[in-house]
Amino acid sequence: MNPTPTTSEERLDAALAAIAAAGDEGPRIFTRLYAHDAHAAARAADQRARQGQSLGPLDGRIVSIKDLFDVAGETTMAGSSLLRDAPPASRDAEVVARLRAAGSVIIGKTNMTEFAFSGVGINPHYGTPGNAFDIHRIPGGSSSGAGISVARGMADIAVGSDTGGSVRIPSALNGLVGFKPSQSRVPRDGAFPLSFTLDCVGPLCSSVADAAATDSVLAGTPHQPLPQQQVQGLRLGVARGLLFTETHPEVAAAIEQALTQLAVAGAQVRDEALDDLLGEPFRLQERGTLVAAEAAWIHRHWADTRGGEYDPIVLGRIRRGQTLDAAAYVGMQQARAALMPALDARMQGLDALLLPTVPLLAPRIDEVQDPDVFLRTNALLLRNPSVFNFFDLPALSLPLPREGKLAVGLMVVGRRGGDRDLLALGQAIEKQLRQLS
Amino acid sequence: MNPTPTTSEERLDAALAAIAAAGDEGPRIFTRLYAHDAHAAARAADQRARQGQSLGPLDGRIVSIKDLFDVAGETTMAGSSLLRDAPPASRDAEVVARLRAAGSVIIGKTNMTEFAFSGVGINPHYGTPGNAFDIHRIPGGSSSGAGISVARGMADIAVGSDTGGSVRIPSALNGLVGFKPSQSRVPRDGAFPLSFTLDCVGPLCSSVADAAATDSVLAGTPHQPLPQQQVQGLRLGVARGLLFTETHPEVAAAIEQALTQLAVAGAQVRDEALDDLLGEPFRLQERGTLVAAEAAWIHRHWADTRGGEYDPIVLGRIRRGQTLDAAAYVGMQQARAALMPALDARMQGLDALLLPTVPLLAPRIDEVQDPDVFLRTNALLLRNPSVFNFFDLPALSLPLPREGKLAVGLMVVGRRGGDRDLLALGQAIEKQLRQLS
Repeated sequence: MNPTPTTSEERLDAALAAIAAAGDEGPRIFTRLYAHDAHAAARAADQRARQGQSLGPLDGRIVSIKDLFDVAGETTMAGSSLLRDAPPASRDAEVVARLRAAGSVIIGKTNMTEFAFSGVGINPHYGTPGNAFDIHRIPGGSSSGAGISVARGMADIAVGSDTGGSVRIPSALNGLVGFKPSQSRVPRDGAFPLSFTLDCVGPLCSSVADAAATDSVLAGTPHQPLPQQQVQGLRLGVARGLLFTETHPEVAAAIEQALTQLAVAGAQVRDEALDDLLGEPFRLQERGTLVAAEAAWIHRHWADTRGGEYDPIVLGRIRRGQTLDAAAYVGMQQARAALMPALDARMQGLDALLLPTVPLLAPRIDEVQDPDVFLRTNALLLRNPSVFNFFDLPALSLPLPREGKLAVGLMVVGRRGGDRDLLALGQAIEKQLRQLS
Repeated sequence: MNPTPTTSEERLDAALAAIAAAGDEGPRIFTRLYAHDAHAAARAADQRARQGQSLGPLDGRIVSIKDLFDVAGETTMAGSSLLRDAPPASRDAEVVARLRAAGSVIIGKTNMTEFAFSGVGINPHYGTPGNAFDIHRIPGGSSSGAGISVARGMADIAVGSDTGGSVRIPSALNGLVGFKPSQSRVPRDGAFPLSFTLDCVGPLCSSVADAAATDSVLAGTPHQPLPQQQVQGLRLGVARGLLFTETHPEVAAAIEQALTQLAVAGAQVRDEALDDLLGEPFRLQERGTLVAAEAAWIHRHWADTRGGEYDPIVLGRIRRGQTLDAAAYVGMQQARAALMPALDARMQGLDALLLPTVPLLAPRIDEVQDPDVFLRTNALLLRNPSVFNFFDLPALSLPLPREGKLAVGLMVVGRRGGDRDLLALGQAIEKQLRQLS
């Protein structure tokens, strides 16, 4: 956002002006705007500021929320047209209530992949917002409008959900910081579910400091500034192998440059051979995924009777989930429970794992119209982020300096339950990488 | 057990003599005896006692363990012949290790329903131990030998597992105290699983004090005597309705007499209409149970290739689980997660719920040879206890005074996570009921 405006209301006006100036793109980024309520919230925040009061670091900040969070009195659409006739929500989603209580100014609801079911960000019902660096390219998903809303100055912070990368992918493709917390950290009440096992709620924003401030509010913990951390001495494992394959040369170059910079700054950067564990989510879910099985239950009433109203690709994934038997699902959950401590043991000597958030530069929207290309692209976009939903580790995507070229994200994966440690470490890396640019 | 012997070794000798005196029944109760190691443990306990030392309330107590707990160096059979060729366990089950560390004298492993899969206690591979009150009647299961070992003076305490009543049913049918804790209270490492969701580990014994002492050891918490509690003023809800149907008149009479006695002693005993919630486990699992789905995964390698080696009734239940789809399983888990707080809310004004542990007197073994009678009997035995595995509430079965007649158990169900409160309350009820006799 333009840094000049100093009051919340001025920032809100600038954000609304940016939305208006986006023309037809506006409704593809925001499915709903709350101009009136947002003005009231901004004025209240400005009044608090004048009286020297503050509700915390999100007081007066302009925040967008993904289309799957309940707002009292409104029908939650979750990027679908299927829910248009559904009854309105009786109360705000827990995270929405927490954002309001923290003084944030909720500007609107952002577009998303239908039911959050892909990482590309295409939506045949509400349109597809263009990438912030090239409007003809995909925004990344499923929190597509969320990423664009921040990247194009229409919000300070976006709150999204991440089941297999839906916060981190649009962050990577639009030059933002994205944070997927540990699953239990942020309540999911009032968020339309994709996967009970894997859904996480987290922010897309412009700095790790904003991510940490938003995380505190979403998690309901008292805000404290992140402890200062040095890059020097950090033990950083590079997850070479499977998750580095099929990486675009420009992505690879940006990642290697960042790794070199971190090593020069005194971090211990060393390759780790973890494919025996990091490849397990794919082997285990070959016949069908946890997400698909859980979505098959969530969509049981509609998939058979209103199939024609779905994006065919979303419906195809739900149908795949319908074929999975209970024993296979139980087996995947048991295997997952055993794999988590196994990876923890192998990460014991590390402060974090590093890898590309996604191996691609944002593809052109017209390229992914072909269903085969779409599915291949989607699989590649979800590949790296989804591993850490499976292992339930906190993960950040940090933007790498690219001088206006298509964005590249570095994924930094923390240790089990170490969400705040990861944010502190991520802030040190962010600072180092900004010096590089 | 005979109260005369004062040393652990004397008590062990008395227990071993009782096993020997049981003749052919012995190997139907115990699948394995540890006479040598038990003597060493008993001698060590006696030596500690002479030196005024104690490892706690289980030091020197004679304990039997169900055939599904790992003992290092031994193959765990779980009441089946399928596992005979399986590799030996590399370490003791966690609860076995805790029992040893607490000084208890592990006398042997007790027989059980194959893979713990029914509440009747019939085992076609290792035989069926007879009921302690009438050897021609069923012992109850699945911890069949466990109950008989205590009821016939072959152990002070038995440790069993309870997935749908497997501790409480044999306790009720053999005049014992049985305790099923909250699931997360006792670790299941090294216990052959029946259901990852529902398996609980708990004791069968002669008093609530013993149950509480054993629970402390199994849960790994420091032992403290139970707080003294009065029956007067206790708010006891009677779960009238579905779970009181099909109750044998003698069971009903014993239960009503106990309820009257508690009311006379000053407890607030009032009927509760909870069938809308307590009936949900049956409605939800009509097409297939959580247990069957999880067993279908556990037995996936054997059910198809070695089906002939199973008890046909056990195999039938596993096969049923193979037909369940993943979405249905996910739906049951989600429904369960929502039902638990709903029942908690309705129990808010109560200290405990009361109902018959099982509605039957122990049927004759020859009666349940007919598969239809078996299945009907099994369903009735599991009906009441299994509800509280589904809701994950702690539950005790207390023996009602019956002057040598077939035993009847009163189930006392506590509040979420209130395991110790339930034990304290159970001890007050136990004291009151003993005054009655």
